[in-house]
Amino acid sequence: MVELKLKAKSTESKARTGVIVTPHGEFETPVFMPVGTNGTVKGLWQDQLEELDARIILGNAFHLFLRPGLNVLRNFGGLHKFMSWKHSILTDSGGFQVFSLKEKKITDDGVKFRSPLDGRALFFTPELSSEIQEAIGSDIAMAFDECVEPSANKDYVRQSVKRTTVWAERFLLSHKGQSMQSLFGIVQGGFFGDLREESAARITSLDFEGFALGGLSVGEDFQTTERILSGSVNLLPEERPRYLMGIGSPELIMAAVENGIDMFDCVLPTRLGRHGAALTSNGRINLKSSTNKEDKRPVDPDCSCKVCSTYSRAYIHHLFIRDEILGKILLSYHNISFLMQFVKRIRQAILDDRLAEFKEHCIETGLIQTENLKTSEERMG
Amino acid sequence: MVELKLKAKSTESKARTGVIVTPHGEFETPVFMPVGTNGTVKGLWQDQLEELDARIILGNAFHLFLRPGLNVLRNFGGLHKFMSWKHSILTDSGGFQVFSLKEKKITDDGVKFRSPLDGRALFFTPELSSEIQEAIGSDIAMAFDECVEPSANKDYVRQSVKRTTVWAERFLLSHKGQSMQSLFGIVQGGFFGDLREESAARITSLDFEGFALGGLSVGEDFQTTERILSGSVNLLPEERPRYLMGIGSPELIMAAVENGIDMFDCVLPTRLGRHGAALTSNGRINLKSSTNKEDKRPVDPDCSCKVCSTYSRAYIHHLFIRDEILGKILLSYHNISFLMQFVKRIRQAILDDRLAEFKEHCIETGLIQTENLKTSEERMG
Ligand SMILES: [Zn+2]
Ligand SMILES: [Zn+2]
Repeated sequence: MVELKLKAKSTESKARTGVIVTPHGEFETPVFMPVGTNGTVKGLWQDQLEELDARIILGNAFHLFLRPGLNVLRNFGGLHKFMSWKHSILTDSGGFQVFSLKEKKITDDGVKFRSPLDGRALFFTPELSSEIQEAIGSDIAMAFDECVEPSANKDYVRQSVKRTTVWAERFLLSHKGQSMQSLFGIVQGGFFGDLREESAARITSLDFEGFALGGLSVGEDFQTTERILSGSVNLLPEERPRYLMGIGSPELIMAAVENGIDMFDCVLPTRLGRHGAALTSNGRINLKSSTNKEDKRPVDPDCSCKVCSTYSRAYIHHLFIRDEILGKILLSYHNISFLMQFVKRIRQAILDDRLAEFKEHCIETGLIQTENLKTSEERMG
Repeated sequence: MVELKLKAKSTESKARTGVIVTPHGEFETPVFMPVGTNGTVKGLWQDQLEELDARIILGNAFHLFLRPGLNVLRNFGGLHKFMSWKHSILTDSGGFQVFSLKEKKITDDGVKFRSPLDGRALFFTPELSSEIQEAIGSDIAMAFDECVEPSANKDYVRQSVKRTTVWAERFLLSHKGQSMQSLFGIVQGGFFGDLREESAARITSLDFEGFALGGLSVGEDFQTTERILSGSVNLLPEERPRYLMGIGSPELIMAAVENGIDMFDCVLPTRLGRHGAALTSNGRINLKSSTNKEDKRPVDPDCSCKVCSTYSRAYIHHLFIRDEILGKILLSYHNISFLMQFVKRIRQAILDDRLAEFKEHCIETGLIQTENLKTSEERMG
């Protein structure tokens, strides 16, 4: 049920821009999707997300299954109504969260574990993930995949790619024809180019409406991410949406876009915000630092958001020093706004076919850093 | 510099309604003033306060002296600019907060204590309080008073009333002619009617532009508050603003208004909100309770605020169960909105001279409770 209408392609890279239409409206791509794991993007009102032009956000099948649970979600007619969000929602299958748990038992059937909330025994399967996401009523549901440890050896990853394929088939089968929901498959394969190829060949042969790259931005270095990314995107069909899971730094966003990715999500802006850090046109700054004590400048003088047009660095510094909740709220808002504005400028640059020039500009100002790049685990709410 | 323009008086009680004009605009009375101890009303953006028709908020001289400190406040040209609030600000003198500290040494000169933030030795005096409030640039500055323990004996309170008078004189003297700021005096006297009379006589003989009743709502029973309140208001000049410090429950607000009070403040709405409780037309409810798990109703079906027109009790319950910051934000917003709407209806009822009928209506719906009434310490942020 989702449709990607491409509007322009870069002649300098694989970058492309377009519009994706879902049952709950449309959004322009490339798109940054704020993460609302528990049905809330931490610290923001839903109308503030709208104000920031967010038209698709993420929910998480695993977390929403634990709370509020399927009964409540069904009773409300889905997450849109439960959280009062009228635009699109994409749900993560829960795979990543289940595999992040320390104690679990993985078989070909599914994953056994204990609820981190109340310790009860749970068994996650492709069928359960499908059922949960159907109850959530997200516009886009992600297949239930196995996320392997970044350190997993090649034999394990090979087995895991097979399992992920079988699970993808079961996921599709259990879901078929039940709703307006679109299903996306997830390509795995760790950091092994040939296994990525194998996984992509298998997953794209299935009847998914879009495809994601999973298992990246899990702590590997930037060059590895880029290598897998550039090798994988060609394996995904041109006419379908391409989604790189769990990235949100300006550096990775630019790399993703240049490699032809349409969608990405990350908890980075709200997590940074809660910890006092801000994304700016000149790189990250830490508002907790006492250098901000008397600084009358906005967080980012080049940012047009409500925080930057209203509040000073000194005030936000003061809020963090006094542990006032408004500090976290304001930086979360600014950071999301910053990424939304950044990606909007990327879309315009692709339309104008001057993405390379724009990237150069971002490197010059420091918005995009070229040294000491790390990727880190940002997919969990 | 503040002017009270009375518009109507109740024929049924001492209630009155009017407008107070300050250098930063005007507001209608009776008025509920949200508390922003550290230069932020906890959890709300300044534009949300505006949206809720707040036109005067509180700051606290003691807390703002500790952080951000006088240098920053002076550098910014006062608290209005520092926190980006263009409407009126009233500042508490810091007396209440200093006297709330466990270790302190009180002399006729002032109060010696250690900073609760970093342990450095501090000496608070009427002159220092005046200097701080001048740096803050509040529209209304409160005199530095001694707040005695509710359990203090009559001899101590008698001494304290004298000290508060001397301090009020010193406060006025140190402040004279330095700014557009209006100074309010504070009547003390504990729960002793004759000492209240003595304090009122002394304080109102001084050149203050408004008068407050301090030392109430500090844990005494509701009847005691009412007794002191009804005995004290007549001792305050009719044509000047009257301020009852630290009250914000619907019950105490109604009692204050009936006794001719124009202004009141309280941390109650935000504090309740952070703890999952909401004020409603039918009394307080606890959103953490599992009875809300599937409740599709708004927090208060009779409330017109953005929270009640958007979100369900079930969703807010879910946010609290998952410890999501948005739960606290939404309930703080609703609770302030609720009190603002309540006081607006009170003003209209006074204009229409049907306050008694409105009160009766509030008792019937449960908005005003008549049983198990307690007052509690709500003046500290
Ligand atoms: Zn900004
Ligand atoms: Zn409301």
